[in-house]
Amino acid sequence: MSPNERARAHRKARQAIDICHALLSERGEVSGAALAREALAAYHTMPEAALPAFYDLLVSEFSPDPAQLTQACADYSAQPSPENLIRLQRTVEPPRQELFRRLNMTAGGTAALVVMRQQLQTALKDHPEWIGIDADLVHLFSSWFNRGFLSLERIDWHTPAIILEKLIRYEAVHEITGWHDLHRRLEADRRCFAYFHPALPDEPLIFIEVALTRGMSAAVQPLLDLGSPVSDPLAADTAIFYSITNCQKGLRGISFGNLLIKQVVQQLERECPRIRTFATLSPFPGFRNWLASVSDQIAAAPEGRAVARELERLEQPEWYAQADPDARLQKTLMALCAYYLVHARAHSEPADSVARFHLGNGARLERLNWLADVSKHGLRQSAGLMVNYLYQLDNVETNHEIYVKDHRVVASSSLKKLARECPLPLPAGRR
Amino acid sequence: MSPNERARAHRKARQAIDICHALLSERGEVSGAALAREALAAYHTMPEAALPAFYDLLVSEFSPDPAQLTQACADYSAQPSPENLIRLQRTVEPPRQELFRRLNMTAGGTAALVVMRQQLQTALKDHPEWIGIDADLVHLFSSWFNRGFLSLERIDWHTPAIILEKLIRYEAVHEITGWHDLHRRLEADRRCFAYFHPALPDEPLIFIEVALTRGMSAAVQPLLDLGSPVSDPLAADTAIFYSITNCQKGLRGISFGNLLIKQVVQQLERECPRIRTFATLSPFPGFRNWLASVSDQIAAAPEGRAVARELERLEQPEWYAQADPDARLQKTLMALCAYYLVHARAHSEPADSVARFHLGNGARLERLNWLADVSKHGLRQSAGLMVNYLYQLDNVETNHEIYVKDHRVVASSSLKKLARECPLPLPAGRR
Amino acid sequence: MSPNERARAHRKARQAIDICHALLSERGEVSGAALAREALAAYHTMPEAALPAFYDLLVSEFSPDPAQLTQACADYSAQPSPENLIRLQRTVEPPRQELFRRLNMTAGGTAALVVMRQQLQTALKDHPEWIGIDADLVHLFSSWFNRGFLSLERIDWHTPAIILEKLIRYEAVHEITGWHDLHRRLEADRRCFAYFHPALPDEPLIFIEVALTRGMSAAVQPLLDLGSPVSDPLAADTAIFYSITNCQKGLRGISFGNLLIKQVVQQLERECPRIRTFATLSPFPGFRNWLASVSDQIAAAPEGRAVARELERLEQPEWYAQADPDARLQKTLMALCAYYLVHARAHSEPADSVARFHLGNGARLERLNWLADVSKHGLRQSAGLMVNYLYQLDNVETNHEIYVKDHRVVASSSLKKLARECPLPLPAGRR
Amino acid sequence: MSPNERARAHRKARQAIDICHALLSERGEVSGAALAREALAAYHTMPEAALPAFYDLLVSEFSPDPAQLTQACADYSAQPSPENLIRLQRTVEPPRQELFRRLNMTAGGTAALVVMRQQLQTALKDHPEWIGIDADLVHLFSSWFNRGFLSLERIDWHTPAIILEKLIRYEAVHEITGWHDLHRRLEADRRCFAYFHPALPDEPLIFIEVALTRGMSAAVQPLLDLGSPVSDPLAADTAIFYSITNCQKGLRGISFGNLLIKQVVQQLERECPRIRTFATLSPFPGFRNWLASVSDQIAAAPEGRAVARELERLEQPEWYAQADPDARLQKTLMALCAYYLVHARAHSEPADSVARFHLGNGARLERLNWLADVSKHGLRQSAGLMVNYLYQLDNVETNHEIYVKDHRVVASSSLKKLARECPLPLPAGRR
Repeated sequence: MSPNERARAHRKARQAIDICHALLSERGEVSGAALAREALAAYHTMPEAALPAFYDLLVSEFSPDPAQLTQACADYSAQPSPENLIRLQRTVEPPRQELFRRLNMTAGGTAALVVMRQQLQTALKDHPEWIGIDADLVHLFSSWFNRGFLSLERIDWHTPAIILEKLIRYEAVHEITGWHDLHRRLEADRRCFAYFHPALPDEPLIFIEVALTRGMSAAVQPLLDLGSPVSDPLAADTAIFYSITNCQKGLRGISFGNLLIKQVVQQLERECPRIRTFATLSPFPGFRNWLASVSDQIAAAPEGRAVARELERLEQPEWYAQADPDARLQKTLMALCAYYLVHARAHSEPADSVARFHLGNGARLERLNWLADVSKHGLRQSAGLMVNYLYQLDNVETNHEIYVKDHRVVASSSLKKLARECPLPLPAGRR
Repeated sequence: MSPNERARAHRKARQAIDICHALLSERGEVSGAALAREALAAYHTMPEAALPAFYDLLVSEFSPDPAQLTQACADYSAQPSPENLIRLQRTVEPPRQELFRRLNMTAGGTAALVVMRQQLQTALKDHPEWIGIDADLVHLFSSWFNRGFLSLERIDWHTPAIILEKLIRYEAVHEITGWHDLHRRLEADRRCFAYFHPALPDEPLIFIEVALTRGMSAAVQPLLDLGSPVSDPLAADTAIFYSITNCQKGLRGISFGNLLIKQVVQQLERECPRIRTFATLSPFPGFRNWLASVSDQIAAAPEGRAVARELERLEQPEWYAQADPDARLQKTLMALCAYYLVHARAHSEPADSVARFHLGNGARLERLNWLADVSKHGLRQSAGLMVNYLYQLDNVETNHEIYVKDHRVVASSSLKKLARECPLPLPAGRR
Repeated sequence: MSPNERARAHRKARQAIDICHALLSERGEVSGAALAREALAAYHTMPEAALPAFYDLLVSEFSPDPAQLTQACADYSAQPSPENLIRLQRTVEPPRQELFRRLNMTAGGTAALVVMRQQLQTALKDHPEWIGIDADLVHLFSSWFNRGFLSLERIDWHTPAIILEKLIRYEAVHEITGWHDLHRRLEADRRCFAYFHPALPDEPLIFIEVALTRGMSAAVQPLLDLGSPVSDPLAADTAIFYSITNCQKGLRGISFGNLLIKQVVQQLERECPRIRTFATLSPFPGFRNWLASVSDQIAAAPEGRAVARELERLEQPEWYAQADPDARLQKTLMALCAYYLVHARAHSEPADSVARFHLGNGARLERLNWLADVSKHGLRQSAGLMVNYLYQLDNVETNHEIYVKDHRVVASSSLKKLARECPLPLPAGRR
Repeated sequence: MSPNERARAHRKARQAIDICHALLSERGEVSGAALAREALAAYHTMPEAALPAFYDLLVSEFSPDPAQLTQACADYSAQPSPENLIRLQRTVEPPRQELFRRLNMTAGGTAALVVMRQQLQTALKDHPEWIGIDADLVHLFSSWFNRGFLSLERIDWHTPAIILEKLIRYEAVHEITGWHDLHRRLEADRRCFAYFHPALPDEPLIFIEVALTRGMSAAVQPLLDLGSPVSDPLAADTAIFYSITNCQKGLRGISFGNLLIKQVVQQLERECPRIRTFATLSPFPGFRNWLASVSDQIAAAPEGRAVARELERLEQPEWYAQADPDARLQKTLMALCAYYLVHARAHSEPADSVARFHLGNGARLERLNWLADVSKHGLRQSAGLMVNYLYQLDNVETNHEIYVKDHRVVASSSLKKLARECPLPLPAGRR
């Protein structure tokens, strides 16, 4: 950046901040909406280069006053009365929060703040000094995006295109290749639901895709097949959640997924009373990496050499399509994978992030599926395997408590049995 | 209350609080909506006698931990780093706030919390120890009822009855006597607008009633006359705001009025470009009381005796309908009233609450109207007089700043001239 | 009417008709909507005195040309080919029909035509020459108000006031005394449904009021009681249709009632599966008149004198509230009334108009109720008695066919038994 | 078709027709909706091979009775009274019409009848005996699809996908290549409007595409360019109607286009007051065929040989991209084309079908554009030329009347001048 550009960026940031000060002042009381509009416009027209200066000013000029706050701390510590507590609460709240609330008074305010946090998120690593801004936004978003203010909407072919195109863009699990693909996912034997917030009517916050099937799906390619015939939803006995996507990076940490899954289960129970089984068909993205990290341990195990040699086949292209006369590789991988899901830990939690999410929701590891996702992505991450997590609303609370209290993974006996066939030693205290 | 009843009330409060604890616990993470529903039900079915115990428990069991907080205070005071600030912010926030946010996850949560605060408001005088609960609710409501989440809706005869009946019930300025009265107020030469929040779709938060007229109205009875002919709204040059009502006592202190008036002005400017004047027709509820309070001063002023004798006529029934050949009473009252509006002070602010509201919004005291409201209520409060406040959007900011900075009342020259005719001495420094 | 007024009325009618001619001409092809608007305005501003001239002109200038039509008749009679049939169809259709279709192109067209027919209906008796206009409107309305274009809407307290006030105004069976009364009829233990047409969004075409009860109601006053407690609709086992009102006199002869009742039965079956009995609680408006008409026959029957003396008590005020130790009057009236409903005939059809409607729909006369409507109206028309018609969807087709084929009244055995206790002789061939 | 298939087809047709008879009978009165549903189902499940038999039966069993009709003709001819007229009207109406009205009572009825006519349309050429069925459907559709029952809807990116995909499918003028193409046509500088009928909520009846431009577009490829930047609609001074498509073949002959164009002009006048010019950019599909048909005349004209030689260049691929130093071909083609539009006739009407439509609507031939559509289609039909028709609402009536009365084409003087440069002789009486 040339000195000129730098100076210009600073000037722009300063101008935007000045309007922010006005918005927080007495003028803001009387002309709030107009000033908020002005401030948003200033923010939107700032060059990207001005953002760091803008954030710096948000920190230096809209944070709590340390002297006042220290005083309020002292007062409270001396006498922890309700009045002193309230005063401390007020003093500790950065003026930034009120600034953000006032920015939100005008149309597009919420959307702008969500985008602001998205930008902040990527910058925080290099600028830990901006963490206070992020904390303020999280605090506000936790209030604003409270479940009570969200609406669950069914997404189908009657949904406006402006929303549908966002599904195509946001889908994070199994890529949607275009409108034709999307249309297949919205046919009579599929369901799609999303949460919306009234201030962001065209923006799904999170969405989930469901297939209504007979029996618990063991592979995802048939579900994604554009040419598959549409089956009768009334004949289905199972709902398979095969994709769930958080759409707004700016809302990271505000969690909707647990609530969404359970509300969709309830909705489907009402709508299709013949459906009794609710389960996911999920990848375990960390499997291959974990496998690499334990290769030495495997090699050191009894018969480990043979196992290691088996696993080398994974490096061959199209290995999964090759004949496997005695099915040794399948046996080996299934056992390792069950072990990974049931026993592998990172900081005492399950190593796999998807597992943490579903187990934390109270679901149960149910069934491992061989060659369930043979897409490039699926092979690279999970060696082509997928797992079903079972959601039984009657059990989720108990499951969740077991999971939280004892760090124990709730899994079907068949899966636990599989895990015992793994050459790696079971962690102490587990069988 | 018998000991038995007391015990029962305590038990009920304890039960409700126990569910609240569960809702805040790990269980709440996984079964939030269901527990929230349970907690709300427990709250709703508590006997009224149990409320004090319930509030006491909300204070004793859901407040910040003083020891932890004192520690966080000490840490921050020792080193005011961003991390310590964030930790202090988190520690100072009562668990109650998260409880309220989780209660809000279920249908009816928002409404229940608004009602809870309404009940609290009336109890606070006798129970100042509950002020922390109130502060938490205010903090949440300030976020939740942010202008950006409200929608302005036109109310007319196409509005659902469930909303219209609430207008009849809530109207606080000029009573609506029934559906017939309401219907007249929603005819083509009238406008009514309200703010709504998505979580309270059947509950107006605030509403304003407007008459589209030719010239600035000098009396309110013609506007309220059920039998008056409906005039052509396209011929109107003036919009008279003759009533504005805050509907939710539980939202006291979260202010909407200023925003509403200005947005309605903008909306009418677009819809009826021939309307150039936007003004209220307002009472000044404190006038008669103030008059009584200054009666000695009046009597002590030059010619004060005569004035005092004039004022005695106000005690006669139907005084306003009597002949008044030399119009002396009118002259006297108009001058006193102008003085009251322009110069009377309470704690350095204008003595009249309605005046404080409109002047604080940047409006201008424009014209005093004789016998403008001869209802019982109007006579008792404002001696039958009313005043127009003028809203000129181009001037509201300047007006507001004058008002805020110098405590000066922005008034038309004719009104200031009237005030000078009052026998009471002008405050020092005013003319 | 003065000659001047007459001349003016004629001029106005002529002007309106001229625009109608323009609308039907080539100009109408290109500027249809604008001309239709003009024509409607001319029609709406015509003084009432001009209407007869207007209708005369509609007959004289917009009827089929007799010469052409006679020719088309001759052609067809000579050779009944498809082409000649189509030509005859076109020639026999009055240009009025196309005029009405074009009038309908503009907003408010449908409403205006419905009102026009309403006016015509009352005038037809004195002006049979206008019957062709009426026939054209009926023909159009039969097409336009086809069931496929109507929507069934639930009416409740969320319905716009502009529609609710029309229920109050139109209610034809049990007067709605005001908004308070209406509100009670829309509570949780009541249902109200109406048909609407897209071109008349604020105008119900027909509406029906339903009470959800335990057991089949035997009296209407409890259902109409404003102070009655609202019962739990989920505990109800019976739906009582206690009022059905056709709203648009201009649509007389286009029947909706049969369809409405059956669709509401289906809707309630879905919504409240515990409801098994669907029945009306109906008056029989012709009873007292019929009773008077057969008084001589009664007197001439065996023991007829005593019966006639009994009946004289009906002339006393509040007769129904008086003690009646041996319940003789009740026995007499019930038998006469059952006879009236089952056997009395007018032109071979049941004498009572309400009975003709429900029996024609396939309902069954189920139970006679003593002192079921003791309003003035109910006493005057039906001597305070009411009857339940039972709607069993599985039987309505069979019932209807019995009714239509043999002119037989489908009634419960208890009601037929009652009828046999009547002193009047049964008609030949009935028992 | 094998005898077996034929027999089966006949049986199926007979079954469907039997339900139709039931629907028209007394049973239909009481169970109309259910029977209509049954009849529709029978119709939908008939094999295609059964349709001819079904139509034959619709003719033989649901036509007016010739004997009765002949009698009604005789009665009317003998005495043309209103009563005899009404009787004749009733007798001449085929029972089919009432059958169709009753079929329409159930969901999907309207759609099924529209499809039925679409099938009939293609079959009529070989089965002129079915013309009566077609006439009945046209008669009903004229009533049902009356302009007063249609709603004009803006189509944009907020429109449901189920409607948008139909635009892609139906577009008849400039093919929409996919969702990406469609999206560009719905951006801020484009408009799209469609008429809908309440009974066919997902089916546009007709839609029009508009570009908001500066100046009158002289070429269509820039309007269709997917990569073109989106311009500011507020800066536009012209609205170019570049495509209009009738969607429902079953509604052929029920015309919406004229009304749609004019209502869209009015809508845009309100929405974008800076737009003053409303014009089409239209092809003339018959030009090349006409050119071939007059080739001998051209050759015979003075200098005709040279012209004919010029025209031979049209046969070369990419002729339009070749250098044309003296622009002779352009001059020649423009003159011939102007002649074609202004003077060429078929049965005394303009030879070109698009010209007949717009001139009949009262538009004016405004400007011929060279190389305005160089797509294959455009070159083949119109030799790459296009024309602007100008819609000035103030003039359309006059223009239309000139057009209708004298068969005169309303064209700009420049276009008429161009036509005079054509080597072909002007028709007698024109200059």
